[in-house]
Amino acid sequence: MITVNLDRDSSTSLYIQLYESLKRDIIIRKLLPNEALPSKRALSEHLGISIKTIENAYSQLLLEGYIYSVEKKGYYVNALSDYRVRSNPTKPYVSKYTDEDYLVDLKANKNSMEMFPVSTWYRIMRETLSYDTTRLWDTVPFNGLSELRIAIARHLLDFRGMEVSPDQIIVGAGTEYLYARLIQLLGRDTSFAVEDPGYTKIRAIYHSNQVNYRAIPLDKNGIRIDLLKQSDCNVVHVSPAHHFPLGLVMPIARRLELLSWVNAQKDRYIIEDDYDSEYRYHGMPVPPLYNIDVRSKVIYMNTFSKCIAPAVRISFMVLPEALMERYLSTLSFYSCSVSSFDQFTLAKFIEGNYLERHINHMKRYYIKQRDDVIRSISQSSLADKTRIIEDAAGTHFLLKVNTSLSDEELISRLKEKKILISCLSEYCEHKNPLYESTLIVNYSGITPGQIRYFITELETLLQPYSA
Amino acid sequence: MITVNLDRDSSTSLYIQLYESLKRDIIIRKLLPNEALPSKRALSEHLGISIKTIENAYSQLLLEGYIYSVEKKGYYVNALSDYRVRSNPTKPYVSKYTDEDYLVDLKANKNSMEMFPVSTWYRIMRETLSYDTTRLWDTVPFNGLSELRIAIARHLLDFRGMEVSPDQIIVGAGTEYLYARLIQLLGRDTSFAVEDPGYTKIRAIYHSNQVNYRAIPLDKNGIRIDLLKQSDCNVVHVSPAHHFPLGLVMPIARRLELLSWVNAQKDRYIIEDDYDSEYRYHGMPVPPLYNIDVRSKVIYMNTFSKCIAPAVRISFMVLPEALMERYLSTLSFYSCSVSSFDQFTLAKFIEGNYLERHINHMKRYYIKQRDDVIRSISQSSLADKTRIIEDAAGTHFLLKVNTSLSDEELISRLKEKKILISCLSEYCEHKNPLYESTLIVNYSGITPGQIRYFITELETLLQPYSA
Repeated sequence: MITVNLDRDSSTSLYIQLYESLKRDIIIRKLLPNEALPSKRALSEHLGISIKTIENAYSQLLLEGYIYSVEKKGYYVNALSDYRVRSNPTKPYVSKYTDEDYLVDLKANKNSMEMFPVSTWYRIMRETLSYDTTRLWDTVPFNGLSELRIAIARHLLDFRGMEVSPDQIIVGAGTEYLYARLIQLLGRDTSFAVEDPGYTKIRAIYHSNQVNYRAIPLDKNGIRIDLLKQSDCNVVHVSPAHHFPLGLVMPIARRLELLSWVNAQKDRYIIEDDYDSEYRYHGMPVPPLYNIDVRSKVIYMNTFSKCIAPAVRISFMVLPEALMERYLSTLSFYSCSVSSFDQFTLAKFIEGNYLERHINHMKRYYIKQRDDVIRSISQSSLADKTRIIEDAAGTHFLLKVNTSLSDEELISRLKEKKILISCLSEYCEHKNPLYESTLIVNYSGITPGQIRYFITELETLLQPYSA
Repeated sequence: MITVNLDRDSSTSLYIQLYESLKRDIIIRKLLPNEALPSKRALSEHLGISIKTIENAYSQLLLEGYIYSVEKKGYYVNALSDYRVRSNPTKPYVSKYTDEDYLVDLKANKNSMEMFPVSTWYRIMRETLSYDTTRLWDTVPFNGLSELRIAIARHLLDFRGMEVSPDQIIVGAGTEYLYARLIQLLGRDTSFAVEDPGYTKIRAIYHSNQVNYRAIPLDKNGIRIDLLKQSDCNVVHVSPAHHFPLGLVMPIARRLELLSWVNAQKDRYIIEDDYDSEYRYHGMPVPPLYNIDVRSKVIYMNTFSKCIAPAVRISFMVLPEALMERYLSTLSFYSCSVSSFDQFTLAKFIEGNYLERHINHMKRYYIKQRDDVIRSISQSSLADKTRIIEDAAGTHFLLKVNTSLSDEELISRLKEKKILISCLSEYCEHKNPLYESTLIVNYSGITPGQIRYFITELETLLQPYSA
C-alpha cells in the first residue's frame, strides 16, 4: 500500500498533501505507468482520512493528467510524456539544441585560450574574492561599477584617444543587450540605417524588435551618404575603424560627410561600433569618429568579449551627455546586467595593464596566423583560382574564388566536408554580383593542420570538373 | 619647445602624429589652457617638417576645439569643458549619479551578507577556476550552460514540484532582460495585462518598450478575471504564489478561472512570476500555476538574485515547448547574457544542496526578522495607530497607518529623517482609497537599532499635531 506522511497540523489541507505525495511518487517512478492506485475506500481506511479527501486528491491528479480512470475498474498511473523530465534519468540529458561539430571552423571568433593570461585572470578573481564582501555583494549601480567605468575611461583615453567621463559609460551584458536599450532610449519611431553588407546580427536585433531599419549599400569609402540622405533614417549604425566583413576603414572625408549629415537635423545620431579596432597590424590605430564629433552626436559602443573571451559578457556604450540624462530619467530603472565579480575582475585587469599586454600579445599572434594562412594559400594551387582581399586588420580576410558554383553550393559543399565558413553574400541585404563568390576566412582560432585541410578541400572543389 | 616623437616610417601621416601628440599633451595638461602654441614656422623648423604638415595638424585641433586662434597672434590651448575627464585627475572621480544615503532602508531587498555562505560560494568559484579551461571560456549556448539548466530543472522539481526539461529553460541576466525577450517572442502586437497594484518595474519595461499594457485591478483573490475578459489583453502577468506588494496567494478557484481564460483563445498566455515563492513560513509552499496548466500556456519566470545576491544576475524562464521552438527559430541568435563562471558556480551551488540549505537558513532568519519587527511595532504606541497586514511570507508586510497625511507627505517626511520606505499607492496604476496610508515594510536587511529609529520617527510623525 502507498505510504504518505500526512501532517494534520499543517495549514495545507490533507487532500493537497496526498495529491503532492502521489504526484511525486509518479514523477520519481515509485509508482509506475499503468500501475493501479488503491481504491478510494481502501486508501481511506489505510490512511485514516475521509473518502472525500481521497476523491479530491484523485480528481486533481486526473485533471492534471497524472492518472487516468477506467470505468468500473479504478485509477491507474499515466505514462508521462517524453517531454517531461525524469528525476532519476537512466540516460544523461542530451540537449535537443546542440550545434553540429565541424573539423574546421572559419566562422567563429575563436580566441585561442592558450593565448589568454588565464592564470592572471584567475589570480585577480581570487584577489577579488578576498575583497570587502559588502562591496562585492551590493547591488551594482544601473550603469555599472564606478571602478570599471573609470578603468574603461582610462583605457579609451590611452587606446582610442577618447576623452570620456565615467558618467557617460553604461556597462551591459553584451552589445546586443545595449542595442535593445538604445532602441528604447532613441524611441521606436527611430529609423535605423545599417551597413549593407554588415553584421547580420544588428539587423536581426532591429527585426526582432520590430523597428524600422534600412540597409544602405557601401562604396569603397564606406556607407553611401547620398543613399543615407535619400532614406528616412535618423540614426545610422557604422563601424568606421574596421568594417565587417569588407575590412574597410572610413577615410576622414567620408567621416566628415557623415558628421555633416548627423549635424543637419536635431534628432540624428551615429552609433559607432568600434568592434575589432584593437587589431590593426600596420601603422597607428584608426581614431574613432567619436573624437571628431564636436556636437555630441556619436554613441560609441565596444565589447570585451572579443579581446578577452566570449564567456565574459561585458560590453559598454558611451553616451553623449544629453542622451545620458535622458537614459537616467527614463531607463535607469533597469538593473545592471553584469555580475559585480566580473566587473571588479575586469577593472583590475585593465588597471594592471594586463589588457594592454594581452591585446599586444594577440596582435602578434593574429599577425602570425594571418601570415601563415596567406602564405599557405599563395603556395597552393589556390593562388591561381582565388584572390585575397584584406588590409592587415581584424581576424579575417576575404577570399574571392573563381568558380561557377553558387555561394549556397560553395558553403554547403564545404559543410559536407565538415568545414564551417561563411561567404560575403550572407551579410548582404541586397544582392550584389561584386560580393559573390567571396569566402570570409576567419583565421583567429585555426591550426596549421586545419588550414591545410581547408586548402585541400577547396582545391578539390575548384577543380574544373566540379565547376 | 614642444617635444614630439615623429615616426617617418609609419604609415600614419606626420600631421596625424603631430595632431595626436599635441592633443594628448592638452588632455594630460602638459599644455595648459590659454598657453600659446609655437608659430607654424617655428615648429616647422624645430621639428624639421613642412609648414603644411603643421597647418594640417593645427586645423584638425582647431576643428575639434582643442585650440583656438587669435587673429594676428596665433594659436592657444582651449580650456576643456568640465564634462571631459582628465587623465591625471587631482580629485578622485565622483559619480554624478549616486543614490542618497539613508539611515534606514525599508525598501531594498537587502540580503544580509552575514547570512550568505560566502565561503562556500567562493570555494565553488575557486573549484570552478581549476576546471577544464576550454569549457569555461567557450561560447555559452544561447539558452545557458546545460549544467545549470539541469540543476535548475532538478531544483524546480524538488522545490516547486515542476516537471521541466532543461531544454525548456532559458537563462538570462535578470528577469528584466528576459521580459524584453518575451516581448520579442510574443510579438509587439501583444497586449499585456499586469496586476494593479503590482511591480512598477514590469510596467516600466512594457512602457519603455512601447507595447500595450493594461493594469487590471485585484480583488482579495487576485487579478479580476471579469476585467481581464473585458480588456483586449492576450497575455497576463501574475504572481500567484505571493503577490507583491499585497502578499496575496491566488486560491485554486481563481487559478482555474485564469486557466480557463487562457485556454479560451489560441494566442493567450500567462506569465507566472514566481518571485519570492521560496519564503513561506507556515505550511507548504504554494504550488505554481505551471503545475496545473495542462495546455502549455504558462511561461514560468524566477530569479536567483533574491535568494543569492543582487550582484549575481541570473534569472531564468521556462517556456512551453511550442514557444521554445519559436524562440529557437527567431531569437536564438542572441548570445547568452550570463558569464560561464557564474553559471558553473550556481550549478554546483544548487547540485551541492547549498541553495536549499541557504533558503532554509534565510527562512529562519526572515521569520525572526519579521517576528522582531512586528513585536517592536505592537509594543510601541504605533499599535493603536497602525495595523499590520501580512500572511507570513516574503520579506515585507503592509503597515496601514492612521493619519491625515497624504502618502507623498508621509514618504517625504520619513525621507527627511533619512528613512527610505515606499507606500502601497506607489505601486498602483489606478488610485484606490483602500490602498492609501499603507506603508510597505521590507524587513529583510533591517537591524534592531534601525527598527527602533523607524518606530520612534513614525510615532513622532503620527502625533496629533503633525496630522
